[in-house]
Amino acid sequence: MGFKSTLRPGLIQLRVLDLDKTLDCYKNVVGLDEVGRTSDGRVMLKCYDEFDHHSVVLRKASEAGLDYVAFKVADVKALEEIKVKTEKFGYKVTELKANDEQPGFGKRYAFTICTGHQLQVYAEVELAKKFPPIKNPDIWHEQPRGMRATRLDHFLLYGPGIDEAERFMKEVFDMYVPEVCNTPDGKRLAAWITGSNKAHDLAFVEYPKPGKMHHFAFFLETWQDVLNAADLIAINHLKLDIGPTRHAITRGTTIYFWEPSGNRIETYCGGYTAYPDNPQRVWDADQLGRGLFYFSGEMIPSFLEVVT
Amino acid sequence: MGFKSTLRPGLIQLRVLDLDKTLDCYKNVVGLDEVGRTSDGRVMLKCYDEFDHHSVVLRKASEAGLDYVAFKVADVKALEEIKVKTEKFGYKVTELKANDEQPGFGKRYAFTICTGHQLQVYAEVELAKKFPPIKNPDIWHEQPRGMRATRLDHFLLYGPGIDEAERFMKEVFDMYVPEVCNTPDGKRLAAWITGSNKAHDLAFVEYPKPGKMHHFAFFLETWQDVLNAADLIAINHLKLDIGPTRHAITRGTTIYFWEPSGNRIETYCGGYTAYPDNPQRVWDADQLGRGLFYFSGEMIPSFLEVVT
Amino acid sequence: MGFKSTLRPGLIQLRVLDLDKTLDCYKNVVGLDEVGRTSDGRVMLKCYDEFDHHSVVLRKASEAGLDYVAFKVADVKALEEIKVKTEKFGYKVTELKANDEQPGFGKRYAFTICTGHQLQVYAEVELAKKFPPIKNPDIWHEQPRGMRATRLDHFLLYGPGIDEAERFMKEVFDMYVPEVCNTPDGKRLAAWITGSNKAHDLAFVEYPKPGKMHHFAFFLETWQDVLNAADLIAINHLKLDIGPTRHAITRGTTIYFWEPSGNRIETYCGGYTAYPDNPQRVWDADQLGRGLFYFSGEMIPSFLEVVT
Amino acid sequence: MGFKSTLRPGLIQLRVLDLDKTLDCYKNVVGLDEVGRTSDGRVMLKCYDEFDHHSVVLRKASEAGLDYVAFKVADVKALEEIKVKTEKFGYKVTELKANDEQPGFGKRYAFTICTGHQLQVYAEVELAKKFPPIKNPDIWHEQPRGMRATRLDHFLLYGPGIDEAERFMKEVFDMYVPEVCNTPDGKRLAAWITGSNKAHDLAFVEYPKPGKMHHFAFFLETWQDVLNAADLIAINHLKLDIGPTRHAITRGTTIYFWEPSGNRIETYCGGYTAYPDNPQRVWDADQLGRGLFYFSGEMIPSFLEVVT
Repeated sequence: MGFKSTLRPGLIQLRVLDLDKTLDCYKNVVGLDEVGRTSDGRVMLKCYDEFDHHSVVLRKASEAGLDYVAFKVADVKALEEIKVKTEKFGYKVTELKANDEQPGFGKRYAFTICTGHQLQVYAEVELAKKFPPIKNPDIWHEQPRGMRATRLDHFLLYGPGIDEAERFMKEVFDMYVPEVCNTPDGKRLAAWITGSNKAHDLAFVEYPKPGKMHHFAFFLETWQDVLNAADLIAINHLKLDIGPTRHAITRGTTIYFWEPSGNRIETYCGGYTAYPDNPQRVWDADQLGRGLFYFSGEMIPSFLEVVT
Repeated sequence: MGFKSTLRPGLIQLRVLDLDKTLDCYKNVVGLDEVGRTSDGRVMLKCYDEFDHHSVVLRKASEAGLDYVAFKVADVKALEEIKVKTEKFGYKVTELKANDEQPGFGKRYAFTICTGHQLQVYAEVELAKKFPPIKNPDIWHEQPRGMRATRLDHFLLYGPGIDEAERFMKEVFDMYVPEVCNTPDGKRLAAWITGSNKAHDLAFVEYPKPGKMHHFAFFLETWQDVLNAADLIAINHLKLDIGPTRHAITRGTTIYFWEPSGNRIETYCGGYTAYPDNPQRVWDADQLGRGLFYFSGEMIPSFLEVVT
Repeated sequence: MGFKSTLRPGLIQLRVLDLDKTLDCYKNVVGLDEVGRTSDGRVMLKCYDEFDHHSVVLRKASEAGLDYVAFKVADVKALEEIKVKTEKFGYKVTELKANDEQPGFGKRYAFTICTGHQLQVYAEVELAKKFPPIKNPDIWHEQPRGMRATRLDHFLLYGPGIDEAERFMKEVFDMYVPEVCNTPDGKRLAAWITGSNKAHDLAFVEYPKPGKMHHFAFFLETWQDVLNAADLIAINHLKLDIGPTRHAITRGTTIYFWEPSGNRIETYCGGYTAYPDNPQRVWDADQLGRGLFYFSGEMIPSFLEVVT
Repeated sequence: MGFKSTLRPGLIQLRVLDLDKTLDCYKNVVGLDEVGRTSDGRVMLKCYDEFDHHSVVLRKASEAGLDYVAFKVADVKALEEIKVKTEKFGYKVTELKANDEQPGFGKRYAFTICTGHQLQVYAEVELAKKFPPIKNPDIWHEQPRGMRATRLDHFLLYGPGIDEAERFMKEVFDMYVPEVCNTPDGKRLAAWITGSNKAHDLAFVEYPKPGKMHHFAFFLETWQDVLNAADLIAINHLKLDIGPTRHAITRGTTIYFWEPSGNRIETYCGGYTAYPDNPQRVWDADQLGRGLFYFSGEMIPSFLEVVT
């Protein structure tokens, strides 16, 4: 009901270098709750305002970066349809058993798209032990702490062939594309893609190397929370990348910073209410600086080039 | 793509007593733009951040209140399916021709549901002459004025038989129900209903008299805008009903006030991001005061009883 | 330097009924730090952004209310001048020895003014053990908690003869009066008084019974913090008195609530930057409802009548 | 009463290149009101929340920069005392007649301090024709527009010998110095100076060239207004210098941008409530980057070097 198939990006698994130090940042600075550990030592986390079992997994590795992201779909029927459509689209699908590698999650399908990223889909996941109040509900159980991240919001993926990736998300995931950036010769440079009212659930930037992650984002409720996040970056001596600023693209306000392992986190707030019938916003590549960093209007080269 | 059928409440036609004075309030206090007048003297208005031709119509009449609300659906196919499903559900459907009574709008279907309210649906509407920027877009063309209402947000309708109305919105409009309030004997007292990520697109309260409107709501971007709206109510000597406060229900922050003709307007902000797979929030009737007026926790009887 | 004599209201001693329960509210909801206990069991507290030893003292008693408030003056010379001027004004002055009843405080002078309130003055107080950072300072040591009260802000005192009290604060404390409310026959009904840029350091309302406290106030930084304070009132089931709203008087935004012992606390934010050369703002008594509750514009009788 | 002598920086006269274009920026983007023109063509402006005749004067010239800043003192007695003390301090004082070059202003004294800046003082100035409401006052007459600047806030002056300048402001203007930055060998690199509760009324940075202005600042009420100011910079294609960010120094949030003539304007918000008895905050020169740009913690060299 309501959504045609894809609900939201619901899970991200990240590689981190120093598990303890990085976990401390996610828990005590970003404000996530630790849900538990897997038998192989990965740490499961969630935001205070999420219902599902967990949304972020940290895996100790020798190199930072993204293992995969997974989308929750409306129901088992939608899940099976996506499997079939993905195979028809030409990507090989692997089935991952329920409760196997991701405790609490039902059956997942995994596949690698042209940009080199592994995506997954699932229809079922257990409720977390500690989810938001639902019976005569208060607005929260405990005062949110740290950056007060409310939920996993979106991902920005770098890789080759994003026109195909965009087509895949539309045809197979029933998503739409509220905003794009094109090169002077009309080729897609970037696409912001969503399956809901959110301005983006994920985005792609064309990039020669496959499988790169630019950043993933947590959602903050207010511009005041964006200030608080920036204060916490300063006080905790985390490395700021950019912000606070506004993206003209999606209209969101934002900060980018590096967690201790070197993954780029965005704390994102706002963004317009997207609808599939609204005209697509279109950016020229030479205006992308203004689209990304609205206030200065100038591109920051490192922003485009540093990925994990 | 993205949404199964219903996109949003897109149009409301209101009866007003003093057209000039009421129009002045909508334009210069709430901050809407006048789009034009119909041949029979009704005034068409829209919010600065809406794309469609118009969203609010004022009709001079001897009594304030609601003529009807209309929902935009994803496409013509969805529109025709809703027509068929509505007739199957048992409501008589009337076809309204494109560009007839509502300039810019395509074909609409109208029907009256059990609560006595006329609802309409449409799939096509022209873009407004002045819609938000889309080419290397700024965040707005002109600094929003007055209360800075961004869009028509939702309606609260009072009438009998809301359990049927709720079922209708689910079965025919593919909506879902993030939050409800039940009487001690388990009957539905109120239901908040949405077709998207918004916490509610409309709501019903069980009420013996049919066809009543409690309020309709404009969306404000921030709690700071809520303060600004309250300041404007004071400065313009409009009659405040309630607020600023928070609804625990939907979590939105809010003000209610009376426009000069006596229709109750809500300026609503926030609200959780709803998903159809999240557990339904459930309120007991004796906690409804807390659900509506979170800070005092006490019901304000006039809030439940005064409708137009 | 800077200020002629009086710096700020720096200390309030309150009577509370249930010390543990009330203390829990001040610490865990309002967000104060417990500094320690006096030998006779009173509890000393301070706000995170205050430098002085403590600013709030809770004394267990059989009736809630105000013991006294104390003002810090610029230096010992100013202190002795105030003593002399107070005696000349006609009030009997008592000397209280340093570190006697209020650990960390220097010599205080105490006297009761015509309204029946005991005021005190002091020039010296030790720095708190935990005061705001001053060496390459971060904006705070620890993320503020609860309502994030930054400092003791002001008091509102009810009693007879406030025209004399106002004259006393001007002549003896070198304060000025940015805003007043007069009865139709030109008598003072209320006066807001300050010695600094703050819109008020204290205020008086004419009232037949002597020595009453209407409320005392903590300062919050932002309107977002006002919302957070209201949320905490709801979640902790504290009794809201009024708000969130705005006072047209001082322009501050505000909430009033009752702490568990029945003392009325205001969480106050904003207020104009006052200067002694600006024209005085003047309210007619019949507009006081609008002055106090700007949005509704209507007086709430209990607000004027319930005092401790 | 209240303040020992100096009330506030009340007037700044700036040199601008293109008077019409620059005026348009101050009026329609920053949001000032044009008060009128002097007989020699200078433009007088004020902020909506200021009472005095005007606070900003634009003078067409071939080079941008500062003509002078002027401070309002408590009364004529304080004015004459400052004249005497200034001469004793060793600076030559010139008397400027009332209503001469600055319409509405009483007698001013002018003198040039060691840093090469002309300062002025005055005790009397007419009220503006359009000043904030004072009789049963609304919070404003008209909804503030543009950046919603409420008042002239402070100046940052660059020049040689700031230790002497700091001593002058303390000894002659009765100001105090809440925050300083020292070089490793203990010399003053920068000082933030105030005569009130504001964190700074002016500041000095040690610099070899005399008479330079780094920026002057308007006050904004909220962090939301800081965002709005940044949006207006983008939409009006003004050149952003830095921000939005926070200064750890004074704790204010801020944006710097260049008005069309090349004068650097700060839109400043917040800042702690300063008191002369609080300990002085002290910065090491190698931490100044963090003090100025709290979130990145890194100095932006152009910020220190580009002055007018």
